[in-house]
Amino acid sequence: MRKILIIGAGKSTSYLIKYLLDKSEEEDLHIIVGDRSISHARKLVGDHENGQAIMLDISDKSSRAQAIKNADIVVSMLPPKYHIEIAKDCITYNKNMTTASYISKEMEDLDKSVRTKGLVFMNEIGVDPGIDHMSAIKVIDRIREQGGKILLFESFTGGLIAPESDNNLWNYKFTWNPRNIVLAGQGGAAKFLQEGTYKYIPYNRVFRRTEFLEVDDYGRFEVYANRDSLKYQSAYGLNDAKTLYRGTMRRVGFSRAWNMFVQLGMTDDEYTMDDSENMSYRDFVNAFLPYSPTDSVELKFRHALKIDQDDIIWDKLEELDIFNPIKKVGLIKATPAEILQKILMDKWTLNSDDKDMIVMYHKFGYELNGEKKQIDSTMVVIGEDETYTAMSKTVGLPLAIVTLAILNEEITTPGVQIPLKKEVYEPTLKALESYGIVFKEKEVPYLGYNPLNI
Amino acid sequence: MRKILIIGAGKSTSYLIKYLLDKSEEEDLHIIVGDRSISHARKLVGDHENGQAIMLDISDKSSRAQAIKNADIVVSMLPPKYHIEIAKDCITYNKNMTTASYISKEMEDLDKSVRTKGLVFMNEIGVDPGIDHMSAIKVIDRIREQGGKILLFESFTGGLIAPESDNNLWNYKFTWNPRNIVLAGQGGAAKFLQEGTYKYIPYNRVFRRTEFLEVDDYGRFEVYANRDSLKYQSAYGLNDAKTLYRGTMRRVGFSRAWNMFVQLGMTDDEYTMDDSENMSYRDFVNAFLPYSPTDSVELKFRHALKIDQDDIIWDKLEELDIFNPIKKVGLIKATPAEILQKILMDKWTLNSDDKDMIVMYHKFGYELNGEKKQIDSTMVVIGEDETYTAMSKTVGLPLAIVTLAILNEEITTPGVQIPLKKEVYEPTLKALESYGIVFKEKEVPYLGYNPLNI
Repeated sequence: MRKILIIGAGKSTSYLIKYLLDKSEEEDLHIIVGDRSISHARKLVGDHENGQAIMLDISDKSSRAQAIKNADIVVSMLPPKYHIEIAKDCITYNKNMTTASYISKEMEDLDKSVRTKGLVFMNEIGVDPGIDHMSAIKVIDRIREQGGKILLFESFTGGLIAPESDNNLWNYKFTWNPRNIVLAGQGGAAKFLQEGTYKYIPYNRVFRRTEFLEVDDYGRFEVYANRDSLKYQSAYGLNDAKTLYRGTMRRVGFSRAWNMFVQLGMTDDEYTMDDSENMSYRDFVNAFLPYSPTDSVELKFRHALKIDQDDIIWDKLEELDIFNPIKKVGLIKATPAEILQKILMDKWTLNSDDKDMIVMYHKFGYELNGEKKQIDSTMVVIGEDETYTAMSKTVGLPLAIVTLAILNEEITTPGVQIPLKKEVYEPTLKALESYGIVFKEKEVPYLGYNPLNI
Repeated sequence: MRKILIIGAGKSTSYLIKYLLDKSEEEDLHIIVGDRSISHARKLVGDHENGQAIMLDISDKSSRAQAIKNADIVVSMLPPKYHIEIAKDCITYNKNMTTASYISKEMEDLDKSVRTKGLVFMNEIGVDPGIDHMSAIKVIDRIREQGGKILLFESFTGGLIAPESDNNLWNYKFTWNPRNIVLAGQGGAAKFLQEGTYKYIPYNRVFRRTEFLEVDDYGRFEVYANRDSLKYQSAYGLNDAKTLYRGTMRRVGFSRAWNMFVQLGMTDDEYTMDDSENMSYRDFVNAFLPYSPTDSVELKFRHALKIDQDDIIWDKLEELDIFNPIKKVGLIKATPAEILQKILMDKWTLNSDDKDMIVMYHKFGYELNGEKKQIDSTMVVIGEDETYTAMSKTVGLPLAIVTLAILNEEITTPGVQIPLKKEVYEPTLKALESYGIVFKEKEVPYLGYNPLNI
């Protein structure tokens, strides 16, 4: 039997493990799930005869090496910073490897050794990054093969709450790491390319420079810019494109409301607040507003951000119970971002029967035979419940499919890579379709970068 | 003769050197000015018989040590990062030392060695820091000696253009390092204490949370918060004060207009802009605004920041010629902040006959015999011309006076210190008065922290 070692049994591994166990009989697989907590690993493996849970602390070098040596391929589901040690062992013991994470500088530096040994280290093979790469490059390759020239590429993804579980005013719940949501957009100006001109947006304006998108049957969404839209420009072969824009999708109105927290400094993660433990939610808000001997926190908040009495964003604040003078923060030496996260988690945590939703939207503007055209491609995946989420499905399935394809020597080009080769994206996207992960394409008039359609 | 070694002959040393040379006869002084450029040093020393210019490159350890060994006291006028090597030599050769800079961590760490040797290392003895410390602690000590208890301390300083040279719409010119002005307020949230509550302001709101101050004969000013108002809380003995607020003074309207640059991200110093060299001023502005196939940069700017057609801040922009499509930035790989600085320097550089102005304003709220009272103390110094500025006067004179007092053993308490002891501030403030550096005090009703006076 061929042994697949999965390191890390976190939330997003459910679909990955299920897919591989389901295939284990026909594909002759033995699935070993290693985690520091063997009970986590056991829960996911269940009592499947081709599955095995092991205790694995990757800081213990010799047991890590032993487990890797014993496997035919390794999937790292650990947080990104831990991939590198596993990768080095994989080189030592001649094992292929897959991750759903962005390629780090250290990982990239292994490329030469990986090639020399003829190994495949496939990264960024989850949903975003992952499915976004494959679904985009598939259309880009096709347009190019027809003789077309890409003028515009815009790409957006959102991890959201499904319409049937969408029951708060923000139209949002945490379906992934809440901390990443609170810190989204920080760390430097967003940069992108619009009609040949570089554009820059500082953090304090990212959530006000949104644009709208319509998805058939799902209505209207908004997008805000990701930090670096140019990251894959050359990997996608888009050095001549005039417009490159990548962003994050939210339901309309989220960003304008979120911007209140940004403006007041409540998303800052750079300093801890005095006596955060004993602060009430109301005290937290008040710390970002001027002192007044008479005025209420509410009126100071409205005045600071010029919020009219009938503006819906006010109801969104009240829904969070953020002005509550009784509820305590209860976090020692916490940053504003940590406190805000705690307040949001009271309201935005998934219920057990809540379904999440992944939405993806690509725009491809191109010139073919002297004519300018545009294809819009969209994907929507709805989760099953709090555990079998759309997020874990769209992260886990492509990873599982590609891991098996590498094991089966259907993917063979060596190197540290992302899924941009036809040998990778074509069979993987095909396989994903049978799991309901499908892109719908439609032709639309090419208007260039022109969000107002004028 | 007693030898005073001044290291660094930059712009702000003019008054320092002049004061010491003027006193050299009566005080039996020999003033040695060392600079990497001996011509700079010569220009400031002139042909005074008690002055001497020497070539001194402080990275040359042996000549640095030689010069320090040969002196009776050392004044470092170099940029802050260079003080530490000089300080170590001063300890080695048992020399006292003075600087106008903030005490760095490294400098503070020398305190024990400095005390052991009985040396005086006086820092922060310019204007801000310097005169602000002395003038504040003088009043605080007096109130305490009367049995009063400080409730509130607010302190503000501005380096501005004098009314007679104030001929632009911003009521501002560069009278000090322009880069510091462009980057002002960055590097983390501003923190202060108002009526017992800690308050925090993020960068993107610092210039909108201003307050007004009136100075007799000079009219109205505004202030924005400095990053850390609590820095000197314990040094000033104000651990029980309910309000602590330090800020920077500008003429009214400056901050609201400056905030346009902050909002659009034009003060960002964290990344370089593509092809900054060949960018026009207009291109620079446009990089922070959305692409449009039809709309003007001007209209996009007005719309982005919601600027009414008759708002004076628009005239301020036009005065800077910032929409000019012809003028080139001409800076290679420049950050937004560097480009903005260049655009501003076209308009805000002092003319040769321009006079600058230093304004300082302290508020002391206190309780004495059961009664709450407040003293406001203000200082205004006007410069003579582009070289003999109020800035160099208020930096150089206290430094010169204290250096001489240490040499004359009138200041003897050893240690790495700032001018908070009566033996320092009392004679120094007295001496400064004869140079027109005078604080005016007045009693005002105590309202607590209450900028609107309601």
